[in-house]
Amino acid sequence: MAITLYTFPTPNGHKISIALELLGLPYKVETVDIKNGEQHTPEFRKVSLNGRIPAITDTEGPGTDSGEPFALFESGAILQYLAEKYDKKQKISYPQGSVEYFKTLEWLFFQNAGVGPMQGQANHFRFAAPEKIEYGVTRYTNETKRLYGVLNTRLERNGTGFLVGDHISIADISLVGWVQRSGPLEIDLAGDFPLLEKWLNKLISIPEVKKGFNVPIEYAHYTESQKQL
Amino acid sequence: MAITLYTFPTPNGHKISIALELLGLPYKVETVDIKNGEQHTPEFRKVSLNGRIPAITDTEGPGTDSGEPFALFESGAILQYLAEKYDKKQKISYPQGSVEYFKTLEWLFFQNAGVGPMQGQANHFRFAAPEKIEYGVTRYTNETKRLYGVLNTRLERNGTGFLVGDHISIADISLVGWVQRSGPLEIDLAGDFPLLEKWLNKLISIPEVKKGFNVPIEYAHYTESQKQL
Repeated sequence: MAITLYTFPTPNGHKISIALELLGLPYKVETVDIKNGEQHTPEFRKVSLNGRIPAITDTEGPGTDSGEPFALFESGAILQYLAEKYDKKQKISYPQGSVEYFKTLEWLFFQNAGVGPMQGQANHFRFAAPEKIEYGVTRYTNETKRLYGVLNTRLERNGTGFLVGDHISIADISLVGWVQRSGPLEIDLAGDFPLLEKWLNKLISIPEVKKGFNVPIEYAHYTESQKQL
Repeated sequence: MAITLYTFPTPNGHKISIALELLGLPYKVETVDIKNGEQHTPEFRKVSLNGRIPAITDTEGPGTDSGEPFALFESGAILQYLAEKYDKKQKISYPQGSVEYFKTLEWLFFQNAGVGPMQGQANHFRFAAPEKIEYGVTRYTNETKRLYGVLNTRLERNGTGFLVGDHISIADISLVGWVQRSGPLEIDLAGDFPLLEKWLNKLISIPEVKKGFNVPIEYAHYTESQKQL
């Protein structure tokens, strides 16, 4: 088995298991229990120098014929790797050099540099910070809503129900776990971002997406998208 | 002239002008004065739906033969576009599919999803927030320092003075403007992250990097990296 996925049930971890399921690739799962600090072990830091999941190794990756193991972290880089190396039928990507290829990168970065960090900070101030700081809660919830508005407009303009082109891509995949967990932030998807809600419901009904959400453990919440973390 | 760069003198804007200078490409500059809200105009939103600089248009981009203008936002996506379309001699990138190619993506996402958002929030709580919230200042300054530590270790392990391979790449380019502005956060580069300081000093001595920092206006601070914003 070529690919090992180091993961935990978070929106970033689910990106990779969803992509692997959609590509129909076999892979081994290594759970990194980030609630018990397993991301800081020297062993895991060899795979992910930043000490963050997700990460992968691939015994058939580039450079491995020279005996070097291939390891990659950062969910956006892993999604691009899987698409470029294993998505010859373009189930989750578009032809290199095409408009859709670069637009996929645009929205992939929009998620990685915008939605992820900002929604992550909204979660922090709402659920994790040791003191209640209203300024932080409001700042990051509002920014998350602004970004969701941009996504809703993008879906309206693209008109296919997907962020780029006419089928699912790594851009959609990078977002689904985040949007699916927006309910606890008191974001009213159906009321304020109806196209994004429609997009979410379509995506989470795809069997491979459901399977991906159940890695590394069964994840009950994808069908109750707006109700709980 | 094929490429128009929509920009403002920020670390994200400078990424693109630095890349264009290193590639030796001609380009037109459109200043988007984000201090006066010009990023919100309907005209600019046609180029950058998110209302953020940098963005580019390219009259020779993909799809333009069908009469559609090609526009792209998100600095990470733009850097990848420029590398893939215009860097045939691989001055700032590595061959598609190689280990170095994917490692460049890894560190490009590390900057876009980690250093940029976290250092940006550190700046916000220190210099822009209407109230002084020590928790925010500390949280984001510490996270920025943690990320700088990861970069310092990466430079040590790679051993070439660059983040990936043996020459400058879009990964280094994405970071230089951010690390160059770390002084105001009271980050002691020389003391705590000596390899990162060495890397910074080498990069900002490259003539094309200097030129890129002077877009869209002369930017006096690149030689005084640790002293001021």
